[in-house]
Amino acid sequence: MVFSKDISIRQLFEKESSTYTYIVYDNKSLDAIIIDPVKETLERDLRIIQELDLKLHWCVDTHLHADHITSSHSLSEELGAKIGLSNKAVVDCGDSVPLAHNESVKVSDKLSFKFIETPGHTNCSGCVLIDEYLFTGDTLLIRGCGRTDFQEGSNKSLFDSVRDKLFILPDETIVFPAHNYKGEMTSTIGEEKKHNPRLKLTNSFSDFEEIMNNLNLSYPAKIDIALPANRKCGKVSH
Amino acid sequence: MVFSKDISIRQLFEKESSTYTYIVYDNKSLDAIIIDPVKETLERDLRIIQELDLKLHWCVDTHLHADHITSSHSLSEELGAKIGLSNKAVVDCGDSVPLAHNESVKVSDKLSFKFIETPGHTNCSGCVLIDEYLFTGDTLLIRGCGRTDFQEGSNKSLFDSVRDKLFILPDETIVFPAHNYKGEMTSTIGEEKKHNPRLKLTNSFSDFEEIMNNLNLSYPAKIDIALPANRKCGKVSH
Repeated sequence: MVFSKDISIRQLFEKESSTYTYIVYDNKSLDAIIIDPVKETLERDLRIIQELDLKLHWCVDTHLHADHITSSHSLSEELGAKIGLSNKAVVDCGDSVPLAHNESVKVSDKLSFKFIETPGHTNCSGCVLIDEYLFTGDTLLIRGCGRTDFQEGSNKSLFDSVRDKLFILPDETIVFPAHNYKGEMTSTIGEEKKHNPRLKLTNSFSDFEEIMNNLNLSYPAKIDIALPANRKCGKVSH
Repeated sequence: MVFSKDISIRQLFEKESSTYTYIVYDNKSLDAIIIDPVKETLERDLRIIQELDLKLHWCVDTHLHADHITSSHSLSEELGAKIGLSNKAVVDCGDSVPLAHNESVKVSDKLSFKFIETPGHTNCSGCVLIDEYLFTGDTLLIRGCGRTDFQEGSNKSLFDSVRDKLFILPDETIVFPAHNYKGEMTSTIGEEKKHNPRLKLTNSFSDFEEIMNNLNLSYPAKIDIALPANRKCGKVSH
């Protein structure tokens, strides 16, 4: 999926947790990063990286996921890539790299990414900005957002993160979320400002809070397995 | 999902039949077409068309699908769009428009599509080319292709269609298939020439034929419902 002369973005789906994984690479140098890789699709992702002759430098997890186990540790071990996570994430991953708010990381001449701290879904949530493409994790979903009732989640923090850090980006910014359950793959900041039923500009914080407090969600099915595993960047004994 | 200054492509997924639907539109005029829309996701697609303020002019079905019922008739009825299908398709759809091989259709100043007849999966299969984006239906899938054992399918026709009509396009051409079952969304002509296990350039026709003759696929579960419905462009009594 070539978006520009300089970089390509390959969006991938893991169906058990409805997670989107992204491989982003420099078209010329083939230097690459992967965002939110999933254990279940490790073999597929390794195959694609190999077929495209990519050099994987970074595995970035937008936060400590509660619904699936990351494959960052395996990809890092297999391909020598660094693991990047918010510096707010409490992890025991050996040599993972803590990313600070607004930190920019240069991967190659044409590929750099910026980490934007966006607490709310979890205390360690962040987004990744690459040119005009925004990988929003669970902070901003297409016409939705991540839940706020676990992992030091906070309605106020999520609302402020989206409004003050994401909605200030140009309307044309492409939103690539970590999940979707309706077969939609992308959105834009402009669309979400207008059509996101929770976070659209015409909603006040109290509108948002009322929606979030009445979601009646069930206990996250995999949290007790996924969270401890993800604190080790997916390093699990088999 | 903005690909260029001129047009946007929105890729959408219908999970029951693992079908990709595409909405393609002119960024400025908002004139739009939809490719391979599915009955089950009609409401979602109508919502997106409405939210994006699109003017839908065409519903194009790449062939008479056997695994799902098209929503072309409903979209056409609801929004006044024309229905486009290969002129090889035997249909009873009222005013559907038969598309000839290599026919180009202008939708707006910046958006035109070309229909490329590619028999093989079915006798009425075709692909849609828009700029450097190729919507391949079931003719060419990511690392695969459609089956050839129903609907006047033919190994020889499919092989020739792919090799003589698709693989002559530039390697950078983006492949947008009608299906994928592994969470992959796009490929390129260059990749498929190299990595498609059935159709890669190093395979002869007899290699391909041997693979296709040994797929041992089961009878298409929905063919007896979907095919008669799709011969009416999805017009079914409820």
